[in-house]
Amino acid sequence: MNFQTEFQPISVQPQEIEKKSFEMIAEELGPHSFTEEQFPIVQRVIHSSADFELGRSIVFHPQAVQAGIAAIRAGRTIVADVQMVQAGISKPRIESFGGEVKVYISDPDVMEEAKRLNTTRAIVSVRKAVKDAPGGIFAIGNAPTALLELIRLVKEGEAQPGLIVGVPVGFVSAAESKAELMKLDVPFIANHGRKGGSPIAVSIINALSILADKQAR
Amino acid sequence: MNFQTEFQPISVQPQEIEKKSFEMIAEELGPHSFTEEQFPIVQRVIHSSADFELGRSIVFHPQAVQAGIAAIRAGRTIVADVQMVQAGISKPRIESFGGEVKVYISDPDVMEEAKRLNTTRAIVSVRKAVKDAPGGIFAIGNAPTALLELIRLVKEGEAQPGLIVGVPVGFVSAAESKAELMKLDVPFIANHGRKGGSPIAVSIINALSILADKQAR
Repeated sequence: MNFQTEFQPISVQPQEIEKKSFEMIAEELGPHSFTEEQFPIVQRVIHSSADFELGRSIVFHPQAVQAGIAAIRAGRTIVADVQMVQAGISKPRIESFGGEVKVYISDPDVMEEAKRLNTTRAIVSVRKAVKDAPGGIFAIGNAPTALLELIRLVKEGEAQPGLIVGVPVGFVSAAESKAELMKLDVPFIANHGRKGGSPIAVSIINALSILADKQAR
Repeated sequence: MNFQTEFQPISVQPQEIEKKSFEMIAEELGPHSFTEEQFPIVQRVIHSSADFELGRSIVFHPQAVQAGIAAIRAGRTIVADVQMVQAGISKPRIESFGGEVKVYISDPDVMEEAKRLNTTRAIVSVRKAVKDAPGGIFAIGNAPTALLELIRLVKEGEAQPGLIVGVPVGFVSAAESKAELMKLDVPFIANHGRKGGSPIAVSIINALSILADKQAR
């Protein structure tokens, strides 16, 4: 690479950088088994992580993409497990459909209840969210305990999320919680292994909202 | 692994999960050349990404850790390049030393100036930050253009950051901007290659603030 000619970032606008990045990702990824509607989501995951292994580890329930688009277009709430996920999600498209992005983990009643029950705020926030945001999209990038609680509530018929984006990162329970999610026959997007995180949850939601926006035109 | 005995996350508190994760990371990483003061930072990076390759790619300027601790203890501002980085940084420890975490990229004056100059908000926000937060710690997890502008201002003597945490992720200019940073003789923490991102910047700042807190006791 000729550093002198390549290296003129001052004139490069974010949209151009993104376009060029997406082209590089499609080229470098090579053959894959994602469908045409799944691929832009995988592309955005790789864009946010520069990690092809992580991109290839994404697993879609067959109805996931259409369910996610439908939920966004219906103005359903996006539930973020932590503030970082809420901060990263692009709001204008979500709001144009009447939806909003909410996070419950620092709500005073959640913090009090977690203390009272001697459990995690993540678990209590999921219990609040399934009541407050029925049919919503759950975007879980950090807390395996939140994902496991959501799976329990789905199994017990107490939660019917529009879509579960389950991509927690970590060494304890993250991979296991995602493996549990993949056993459910509900719309989910998840990934195999320990990797994941806030930017992965964010990029999946942002990719879905772009698809929802395109369908609405 | 016996799934039945391992898999009891409901009773596991976040602090226990973190402790267990850090032990697993130290064990799996094996031999490395990080110093005793650098290692907890690398450990936290791996904890946030589950990516050992990314952890091994971290590069420290020899004075970086002490400079970062000193800046936090002096109550210097932490400048986040984007909202996600601001959202992820643990505030109580920073605030206990009189510091705060600021992000300028969505300030109305930054947005107007970027439009007027036909440049990126990331670049303009760095120009504002070096004036508003002299001696601050710059935590750049997303925008290579922000890091390149900061490098330019340092070279021209217009900026003297306490520490530069430069870990932008991406396919266009990210690796190149970090390679440029590593040529400077100023305190920096960066990494080789395309990987990086908001959680990486966040975990480095949080690890430093824990070290600052320990020194203060």
